[in-house]
Amino acid sequence: MKNIAVILSGCGVFDGAEIHEAVLTLLAIRQAGASYQCFAPDKSQLHVVNHLTGDVDETASRNVLTESARIARGDIKPVTECDVDEFDAIILPGGFGAAKNLCTFAVDGDQSRPDAEVLAVCKAFAEARKPAGYACIAPALAASVYPQGVKLTIGNDEATATGINAMGAEHVNCDVDDVVIDNEHKLVTTPAYMLAQDILEANAGLTKMVKSVLAMK
Amino acid sequence: MKNIAVILSGCGVFDGAEIHEAVLTLLAIRQAGASYQCFAPDKSQLHVVNHLTGDVDETASRNVLTESARIARGDIKPVTECDVDEFDAIILPGGFGAAKNLCTFAVDGDQSRPDAEVLAVCKAFAEARKPAGYACIAPALAASVYPQGVKLTIGNDEATATGINAMGAEHVNCDVDDVVIDNEHKLVTTPAYMLAQDILEANAGLTKMVKSVLAMK
Repeated sequence: MKNIAVILSGCGVFDGAEIHEAVLTLLAIRQAGASYQCFAPDKSQLHVVNHLTGDVDETASRNVLTESARIARGDIKPVTECDVDEFDAIILPGGFGAAKNLCTFAVDGDQSRPDAEVLAVCKAFAEARKPAGYACIAPALAASVYPQGVKLTIGNDEATATGINAMGAEHVNCDVDDVVIDNEHKLVTTPAYMLAQDILEANAGLTKMVKSVLAMK
Repeated sequence: MKNIAVILSGCGVFDGAEIHEAVLTLLAIRQAGASYQCFAPDKSQLHVVNHLTGDVDETASRNVLTESARIARGDIKPVTECDVDEFDAIILPGGFGAAKNLCTFAVDGDQSRPDAEVLAVCKAFAEARKPAGYACIAPALAASVYPQGVKLTIGNDEATATGINAMGAEHVNCDVDDVVIDNEHKLVTTPAYMLAQDILEANAGLTKMVKSVLAMK
């Protein structure tokens, strides 16, 4: 049975991991007959956003690992404990957390700086030539992980694609139910809620991403 | 297209709505060709639980509606705005939030008191003879909504079943991938994470519950 490391970035689309994407990724992994272990960085979130109003709550502070534990039902470890040797592949769902807590793309654009602990883990999978899946806005982090010219997608948002291209990646437009596969770097990306209008559309692309990652040798 | 009211109770298994159950319910509704609108009570959670350690954070306070908005991606309304006339059925996923925030079963057992706003909405569906689905521990609330003798399940936990029976319901043991259907009261219940060992098992029962609710005349 293949074992997949899943990196979460909090719990909620506006300040953490996109919850539908995370759960649908876990479901697709298990439906494909593989197992998973969730991880997240043990640090403060960039923001706490009130998901009812969309406002940043300036008085609040939440921890990425602690909030990610909500999605993982408590079964989660600090990302520093993710040993590439124990896993066949790595998958990162999206949500603003991927661009706020795993790297700084949400505020710094093409000057995005990846979280050092997350970068170390993601690079370990890339260098071990183990497959990876990045969904939604998480490919903005992949641009810091993989060599120049890596092919990836965040859908078709021009400003975001331009920022990612300026970091050295090669953005490829992609439909919501499809994936972009870079076979050289063993990287699979899908737009998910960068394009999805509902949970069915998100599920289509995410399921295809998970299947593609698991099918890679 | 049938339209389903989904009542959430926060965001996280230990103090709110169980996240997998909530997302899998939304997915199953859309996969069955129906639409949904999420609702939650606008009030403080009973507890904020650190999902990494399991400890109650005595210093923290979170709002049920605001946290539920994370699962609903912001598209959620106060439960007081749930008009039975606009919906074909109502579904309540589980998680401790159902027994902590929608009623007091988690602390009061068979002396459980339902939240007045939630009870009014749930009773409106029961009295309109519109189908309802309650998952996991949410059937403990159903015991306060439906008449004495209503048949329901929370799986096979004896202490919980005894408490629910003391409230006047008739608990029926049920496997994780199955549902208990009370045709007289148009109530469908399933154990979900009261029994599920993983997301596949939860998905099997929840999908069957959603299909059964949507199939009811």
